[in-house]
Amino acid sequence: MRIAIFLYDGMTALDAIGPYDVLRQLPGAEVVFVGDTAGIKRTEAQPLGLVADRAFADVTRADILVVPGGLGQERVMREPATLAWIRRIHETTTWTTSVCTGSLILAAAGLLRGLRATTHWAVLDELREFGATPVSERVVEQGKIITAAGVSAGIDMALRLVARIAGDDVARGIQLGIEYDPAPPFDTGSPQKAPAYIVDLVRQTLEQMRAAYVVPAA
Amino acid sequence: MRIAIFLYDGMTALDAIGPYDVLRQLPGAEVVFVGDTAGIKRTEAQPLGLVADRAFADVTRADILVVPGGLGQERVMREPATLAWIRRIHETTTWTTSVCTGSLILAAAGLLRGLRATTHWAVLDELREFGATPVSERVVEQGKIITAAGVSAGIDMALRLVARIAGDDVARGIQLGIEYDPAPPFDTGSPQKAPAYIVDLVRQTLEQMRAAYVVPAA
Repeated sequence: MRIAIFLYDGMTALDAIGPYDVLRQLPGAEVVFVGDTAGIKRTEAQPLGLVADRAFADVTRADILVVPGGLGQERVMREPATLAWIRRIHETTTWTTSVCTGSLILAAAGLLRGLRATTHWAVLDELREFGATPVSERVVEQGKIITAAGVSAGIDMALRLVARIAGDDVARGIQLGIEYDPAPPFDTGSPQKAPAYIVDLVRQTLEQMRAAYVVPAA
Repeated sequence: MRIAIFLYDGMTALDAIGPYDVLRQLPGAEVVFVGDTAGIKRTEAQPLGLVADRAFADVTRADILVVPGGLGQERVMREPATLAWIRRIHETTTWTTSVCTGSLILAAAGLLRGLRATTHWAVLDELREFGATPVSERVVEQGKIITAAGVSAGIDMALRLVARIAGDDVARGIQLGIEYDPAPPFDTGSPQKAPAYIVDLVRQTLEQMRAAYVVPAA
């Protein structure tokens, strides 16, 4: 059970780490972190380095692929080598998954045409440009492709995937192991639930961050 | 607003990354990842390398300290240099926090004596050995020390901390930004909610993992 998690400069760490700390507990799991080249990738705010132990060239198959999102996603979805690798791995997977704007990378690779999919709420409509049907749901399963909503939704997605692969009890046990009994202090985790002025503020902030984002120097 | 996140071999990634992806969005936040020495630290299952950009010697103060847990915690809590650094930084902090078994590291550093505290449910009683009063709550605040329960509880802890520091609206905005509208597929995230046979199985598995855990070769 090989799980390949794609790392790139400008990704959001939690998009990858939520699914990682769930899926690594699948019976027989082998997790590999893969970048365009092997080496350290820095998260969007740059303070955190995550190590891609393998390069695209080293990984030619996976049972599960996880594609995270983040501010670097707009750059990555224009990189032919990245899109080619994702398409190649997708041909070998049992499950191809994304978290947050990672689904826009899958979409740019041509994998979501004609499918329902989700992504971070603030950019949901962008899925249309690639022939997908945006859906405001936390986890969307279409055949072997599973897309999750923003950042933290990867935890829910991964637990559902564990249940599909190894059964409900294994998923329940992993949920208990990571003590995932969420108790957020507010009920503002979706644009349907948050006050309109907060939704507007977060949307503006994200748009500014996306516009201002530059690739960190290597 | 300097946030120091302690990294070590054998840590659980999500313990650190949940708080990281919340706290980094605090206005004026500067996040530093700190290890005993600078360099790559590998998570408990070893597939993931996280980069500590700074060594203990380089970081002498922080506004917020985050101490994650994981299988490596038992080793770390016997390292005098680690405990001395944690005590030194704690003297400078506004908030000292832990996630999961990270509270046992705080306890070993002598910071929890006479205080209520929490940790991962499976090892909750171990806090008593260090003079703390174990509490089965998701987030426990005692003066400037905040301990969170297992792994995923760090997200809830960090959102509460943001609310304390920057106000409810900033916390609500960050929650919306990471789309933290949790929808776990099961309701088994705590030992009070999970079926007894799953609690027993997870407890046994964790005990075996702790007993079998060896420090990864450098």
